[in-house]
Order: sequence, then C-alpha cells, then structure tokens
Amino acid sequence: MSSGLLRLGLQLRPDRLVSSHRAWRKHYTAQSGALEQAVAAFRSVSGDDGVSMGLAVREQHGRDESVHRCRPPDVVVFPRCVEEVSALAKICHHHRLPIITFGTGTGLEGGVGAVKGGVCFSLRKMDQVLDLHPEDFDVTVEPGVTHKVLNSYLRDTGLWFPVDPGADASLCGMAATSASGTNAVRYGTMRDNVLNLEVVMADGTIIHTAGKGRRPRKRAAGYNLTNLFVGSEGTLGILTKATLRLYGIPEGMASAVCSFPSVQAAVDSTVQVLQAGVPIARIEFLDDVMIGACNRFNSLSYPILPTLFLEFHGSSRSLEEQVSVTEEITRENGGSDFAWAEDEETRSRLWKARHDAWYAALALRPGCKAYSTDVCVPISCLPQVIVETKDDLIRSNLIGPIAGHVGDGNFHCFMVLNPDDPDEVRRVHEFTNRLARMALLVGGTCTGEHGVGLGKRALLREELCPQTMEVMQGLKATLDPKNLMNPGKIL
Amino acid sequence: MSSGLLRLGLQLRPDRLVSSHRAWRKHYTAQSGALEQAVAAFRSVSGDDGVSMGLAVREQHGRDESVHRCRPPDVVVFPRCVEEVSALAKICHHHRLPIITFGTGTGLEGGVGAVKGGVCFSLRKMDQVLDLHPEDFDVTVEPGVTHKVLNSYLRDTGLWFPVDPGADASLCGMAATSASGTNAVRYGTMRDNVLNLEVVMADGTIIHTAGKGRRPRKRAAGYNLTNLFVGSEGTLGILTKATLRLYGIPEGMASAVCSFPSVQAAVDSTVQVLQAGVPIARIEFLDDVMIGACNRFNSLSYPILPTLFLEFHGSSRSLEEQVSVTEEITRENGGSDFAWAEDEETRSRLWKARHDAWYAALALRPGCKAYSTDVCVPISCLPQVIVETKDDLIRSNLIGPIAGHVGDGNFHCFMVLNPDDPDEVRRVHEFTNRLARMALLVGGTCTGEHGVGLGKRALLREELCPQTMEVMQGLKATLDPKNLMNPGKIL
Repeated sequence: MSSGLLRLGLQLRPDRLVSSHRAWRKHYTAQSGALEQAVAAFRSVSGDDGVSMGLAVREQHGRDESVHRCRPPDVVVFPRCVEEVSALAKICHHHRLPIITFGTGTGLEGGVGAVKGGVCFSLRKMDQVLDLHPEDFDVTVEPGVTHKVLNSYLRDTGLWFPVDPGADASLCGMAATSASGTNAVRYGTMRDNVLNLEVVMADGTIIHTAGKGRRPRKRAAGYNLTNLFVGSEGTLGILTKATLRLYGIPEGMASAVCSFPSVQAAVDSTVQVLQAGVPIARIEFLDDVMIGACNRFNSLSYPILPTLFLEFHGSSRSLEEQVSVTEEITRENGGSDFAWAEDEETRSRLWKARHDAWYAALALRPGCKAYSTDVCVPISCLPQVIVETKDDLIRSNLIGPIAGHVGDGNFHCFMVLNPDDPDEVRRVHEFTNRLARMALLVGGTCTGEHGVGLGKRALLREELCPQTMEVMQGLKATLDPKNLMNPGKIL
Repeated sequence: MSSGLLRLGLQLRPDRLVSSHRAWRKHYTAQSGALEQAVAAFRSVSGDDGVSMGLAVREQHGRDESVHRCRPPDVVVFPRCVEEVSALAKICHHHRLPIITFGTGTGLEGGVGAVKGGVCFSLRKMDQVLDLHPEDFDVTVEPGVTHKVLNSYLRDTGLWFPVDPGADASLCGMAATSASGTNAVRYGTMRDNVLNLEVVMADGTIIHTAGKGRRPRKRAAGYNLTNLFVGSEGTLGILTKATLRLYGIPEGMASAVCSFPSVQAAVDSTVQVLQAGVPIARIEFLDDVMIGACNRFNSLSYPILPTLFLEFHGSSRSLEEQVSVTEEITRENGGSDFAWAEDEETRSRLWKARHDAWYAALALRPGCKAYSTDVCVPISCLPQVIVETKDDLIRSNLIGPIAGHVGDGNFHCFMVLNPDDPDEVRRVHEFTNRLARMALLVGGTCTGEHGVGLGKRALLREELCPQTMEVMQGLKATLDPKNLMNPGKIL
C-alpha cells in the first residue's frame, strides 16, 4: 500500500477522516479488551477456522479494486449461514464494533475499507443457489454467489441473470452497491431486478424486506425496503440472501462495432436508436483513446475513432430488423459499416475487449495504477460532457480513456496514474472532482453505478441539498443508531 | 354514506380504529382553537378561495372509489405551488394537525380517508407539465397532472408515459400508491418509472429525492429515497413534483382476444409467451364471469370462457413475429383463434371493455356497490389460486368476476355487494381476507398495486414479520415524528 495511494484515498477529506478516526480510536481504546472478548465469542460461534486475525487476510479484506486505502479490519469472520451472521452481529453490537461486509472486493470506490477498524464479515462461505423457480423467472441466492456462478448454474434452464458490472462480483455485493453494467439499457440495474432481500440489521435482527419467502413480481404492500437496502453499501445492514428476477435467454444475439467521425455522431445515433424503439441490449461508447488501448491490448485493429460496441438480442427476424434500423441510423450519422460478430466466439472476443478496458488502459503505462471514475448525465448532455472531459484531460496532462454505457448517459474515465507522483495524484483528484461537478451542473449524478463509498462522500453533499442529506442521515441513525454498519461510507 | 359501507370500512379492525380515534379526539379537543387558528393561517397563505370547510367539499375529499369510509377532513386546502404546500404544512406541523394528500380520489383502499380528521391537501391546482426533455425521455410534472393529460400533452412528441392504472389518476397519486396496471408487464410500474420526486416533509421542509433538478437514468448516489416515497401512500410526505421516464410510441400496436378451455391453459400460455421472450405489452386475464359481464355491458359476444386480452407493440415485422409465436403457443394450449383489433378504433373498443370491467361488474347487480380487491402471486401459483378463489366465491354465495395482469401474477376480484346487507358485507370481508391469505401462503403479497391504505393494514402485518414491520415503523417515526402524515394508513 503506497503512500501515494493512501494520499489519493484520504485527500478527499483528510481532516474529517483523521479527526473522526482519532475520536473513535480514543473511544475504542477506552473499551480495551472489547475486541479480544468479541473474538473469543466469534470463535465460539464460527469455530477457529471461521475467524482470522492474520495481517495478510485482514489486508486482503480491507481493500477493493480502487485506489482508496485505509486501515484493514481488526478481524475477519467467515460465517456459514444467516444465523451465524446474526449471532456475530449481536456480538459486534454488544461490543460496539464496526461491521464491514465483504463480497468479492471488486468495488471501485473504497466501500470495504475499515475506516474505523472493526470486523469484516466475509460472506464467501455462503455460496449456495437456493430456490430456483424457472416458471416464475426468479431465484434466491446466498451472498457468496457471483453473477457468473449463477449464470453457470442456470445454463440448462433457458434463463439468465443479465446484470453484469464487468467484474465477477457477488450478487449481494452488486445489490449493496446498486450495480449495473453494459446490459442495463435493456434489462435495468440491480434496483430493477431484486425482488426481496434477507438482511441482518445492526443489532443482529433478521428481516426480509418483502416478507420471508415472498417473491411476487409486483408489490404495493408497505414501504419499499428492498430498494432502500439496494445501494445502501453495507451501511444499513448485511445482505444475506437476494431473490432476483431472471430472464429468458434470447433466441439469438448479434454484436457489432461501428466507428464515428465525432462523439456527437455516436451519441446522436444512440438517442435515435432508443427513440426508434430498438430494444438494444448493449450500446457501449469507447472514445478514440480507449479504442487505441483496446487495439493494442487485444491485438485488434479498429479505427482510432469514437466507437460504439452494440449488441442485439432476439429472434433471428427481430435481430434482422433491429440491425437494419440501427444500421440506417448510424449510416445517416456518418458511422462506418458494421464489423460483425454473430457467433459465440467472435462475440465473446469483442466483449472481452470491452471488459478488458481496465487492463487495456493500464497497459498504456506499465507499472501504473488505474482509477475508474463514473458519472451519469442526461443523454442529451453527453457529447458536451465527454468533449469537455477530453479537453480537460489534455489540459491536465492526464491519461484517461473513456468508455461508457451511453444508452443510460453513464460513462467512466479510466485514469492511469503513477501513485508515487504526488502532483499527478493531486491532478487526478482535481480532475475527477471537476468531472463530477460538470455532471452535477447538467442535472446528472456523481455516480451512476460505482456508488459513493469513501471516494464520493464530499460530492454527494454537493449533489443533494442539505435537507435531503438530513433525511438520509435520519434513516441511517434509525436503522443503525450506534453507527456500526460500514461507518464512514456514503454519509 | 350508508352504515353498511361504514361497516365494511371499519370492520377490518373496528376496535383499533375507534379507540385510537377516541384518544386522538380527546387530544384534539384539548387543543381547542388549534383548527380555527390554523384555518386563519391557511387563508393568509392560500386566500379565501384556497381553503374550504364546506361539508360537500370535505366529504368529496374524504373518500376514494373504495367502500372504505371514515370521517371527512376538517378542512380542505388548495395550494398553488410547492412553497404554499410547504407553508401550509408548517402550519399543520405547528398545530399538530394531520395532513392527507388528495390527488383525484381514484384510490381503491381508502387511502384518502381522514381517520383522525385534519387537513386535506387537494393538489388539483398544481397541474402544469414542466421540463419536457424529449431527447432524454423524461418529463417533470406537478401533482395535479393525470396520466391522460400528460399523454395528451406528449401527443406530438412521439413519446408517451405507459403506466395506466385504468382510472385517470394523477401521476403523483400513482407514485404515492405505487400504481401499475395493464402495461406493467412490459413497461414496469411507477417504481420503475419515477426518476426524482419533490417532497414536502411533515415539518414543511422541501426535499428532492434525487437532488434538485437531477434526472440521470441511473443513480448509485446514496440511499434510494425516490423509491422509499413511491408507494408510501402519503404517510411520509407530500409529493409535489415527479420526474418520469418516457418511452417512444411504438410504430405499431395490435390487440387480440383469445379464449381458453381452462384457467390453467390461459396461464400456461402466458408463462410460455414470457419464456419465449415475446415483449408483450399487455396480457390480461378475464374469467368466464368477467367476460360474461363485459359481453353484457359492452354488447360484445366473446365466448363465456377464461380469456386473454393481448396487446403487441412494435414495428410491423416485429408485430407479425410476436403474434405468430404467441398464436402458436395459445393454439398448443387449446386457445381459440385470435379475434383481432389492429386499427385504433377497434383496439380502443376492446380495451374499453377491459377498462370498463368495474362498471360491467356493477351492472351484474344494479343498485349495488363494487369493491375491487387485489393480490399478486408467483405466476406458477396463479391457476391454483384463481380456481380456488372461484370455488370460494361460489361457496360464499358472492359475485366476484376476476380480471388480472396475468403476466405479473396480479389479479383483482370485483366484488359486487349490497352494502346494506350486513351478512353479505361480512362474507365479502371474510372472503377478501381468505384470498389475501391464500396469496400469502404461496409466497405472494396481499396487494400488488392498490396499496395498503385503510383496508389491508391487518393483512400487511401477516405478510411481513414483526421485525420488518418495526423497521417500517422506525422509518415512519423518523420522517414524521408527530405522526401527522396520513395517519392510520399502512401501519
């Protein structure tokens, strides 16, 4: 963990983090022995192999794929079932120990950092797919199940779960961060695809947001707790089970690549495709820098131009029609002929290039680190925001290829930086703040899918008025009065 | 207001309602003069014509389309803008007067009843469509705008708002009750289609759930307040503005009617159509009793059999394909040939018959009242639940034609009853409880789209475990500590 990385993580509000950490440390030391007592109790619940205090394990569970860093948790527990999670949470509650939930550690805004130390709940041992109901298009999973594991499990059912953030994240982790990804334009995000959640609250109570075992597709029965916990980033409770919507695997899929003379032409095409009612499954934008990086990393030879990666799902006749409408639109906007990928292998190669964007960006500067920032804006503002962002990158002397879910107005800058260059770290930090503020200025959000975590707490306060922040703080205080659930995140 | 209607409304928990009302009345009388002082203050905010205490106006604003009845509000105010709503709410807060928000009064579970008297906020004067962004597929509306008014407004833009609960409800009322309707199988419910809400809280504070003026299609920035207020039925705040997702008007639409030998055959067809990935826009089930009533009421001659009303949206080629797949499936399940409606006029006539179901049911017993109850179950359980429901109706000697949004597993029984027959009122009440409990037994919900209101509070406690109810009560107490927002509803 280099000091440069630390700096980027903490620069957001170092004063606040450090002072609140000091206050907590004081309190924590005052309760000396609390941790030892708790660990003994954890062992009696989860056995010796269900509790780890080794530095390597703790460090591994104290960071995600972002550059945000803080101290690791004091101990990691590996519960095997919800009853164990509940028992462990009760111990934490009794001893006032923070709880940080850990899925796969593939988050991008420092959501699993143990700002105040405490206990990391790694849920990887709870990895069963439960209660598949193919005729009802739903399934219930334990928190250790990743979306790829679920889709392997579903292989012979004709069904799939389409939300795919790129990394093979756990489904409850994806629910916790309101993940989405390339398919969201057609299938929605986790907000649209979670039907019910089992949650262990701060005091160890187990609740089911839509009632135990319930899985109707629609509900109007009381407050929508499911969507309060989706996106709560572990700050309101521990997600221990998720009931998800499934979809029929489309009869056919076809993917294509199309280059454009300008960002505007690519985005105009996207808007027109959506207006024409084409049920496009994926429509991904890559800027010239990103395409260049992908070409190099994956030995491809796409023109170095603003580019759309497209995917169509449907029957062969429907595919034919979707493609013909889309081709007409892209041609009118000056797009190139489509480079096609219809068979599974070519399609996989194409989407691998898109999903490898992170590594392709990294390969632009070997030995450096990447930091992916994410904003979402009304789609009509996207060309202006992207063009200004590219200018800003040049002015700031930074490398930041751009890729995005353009159908949702959501895009990422893959910042590639030398973490040991304090000046560059500062410039990246300032640039990402400027980008977020530009998104806010045009009616967008500072994060469309990565979440707030550690990295965007200050920006969230700019996005929402103080009154709205107060409502969020009130909800947090009600559900977690001791502030034990992933403290220091979001708010 | 007949005593019979009163009886049905109150029978749900008469002891509870009456005792809590008495306690409140005592408190209210102790604060004598509070109402007069408040009304004087209301007049200074909204003018004389913005405040009404006339009995007729109060009674009109104290009931919806359900049979649930309680006392009317003490006064009705007609604010013209959010600032007025806020000022009026502050007065209510100061004087501890309950606030009941009134849209169009088309609710079905007694949501607008003034259980504890208080002040009805009628929002009909706030009726402007604001901030239409056609290229971003979004629009912001004031609370008095109904979905039909919005769609008229949008007519020349090529866009529409598809959520349609049948009645011409106000869009903020639809958000407040998490409304859905016939198009939900394709376009989702209000939960899926509200991007942002302006809300006046119990103390008069104005918040914007997703930040003021923000309208990105995706957000991962903090707690999902939007979907906490959607479905909160006026118990957490007053919705004064909604930003909604719009859709491109499909190139073509075609509707069809198909009869089946059994409920099972109709539902099997539905499941298979969804599994085949047909993006069906509407798939509505009507049982034999309902079809008979529709035939009589609308001078139609459909076979008296379990029936599906279907609608397809898309290009002409896509329509052709959707229809051919669907026809093959229905034929294999013993369905009749499709009776077609492709031109606008025939389509309208067909859907008018579906939307007139309520009146068609009423016409079965002239002089009686109708009560529409609603449950939602996993679709695989639908045939069993509908068949048992029909048996129960016969055993209970009740008339209750069934119609439902079968693609979502959601259906309604249109109970037709003589409100002056106490025995029949009791039987209806017992039947609706049994139906809801059957839905709960198979993993469903006591309400898929009508909400809890007055009518289903006891059932909600059966649907959710006490711990989940406590979380809901905690949220309510945090956001409305004086319990002024539509008291006596949901919880």
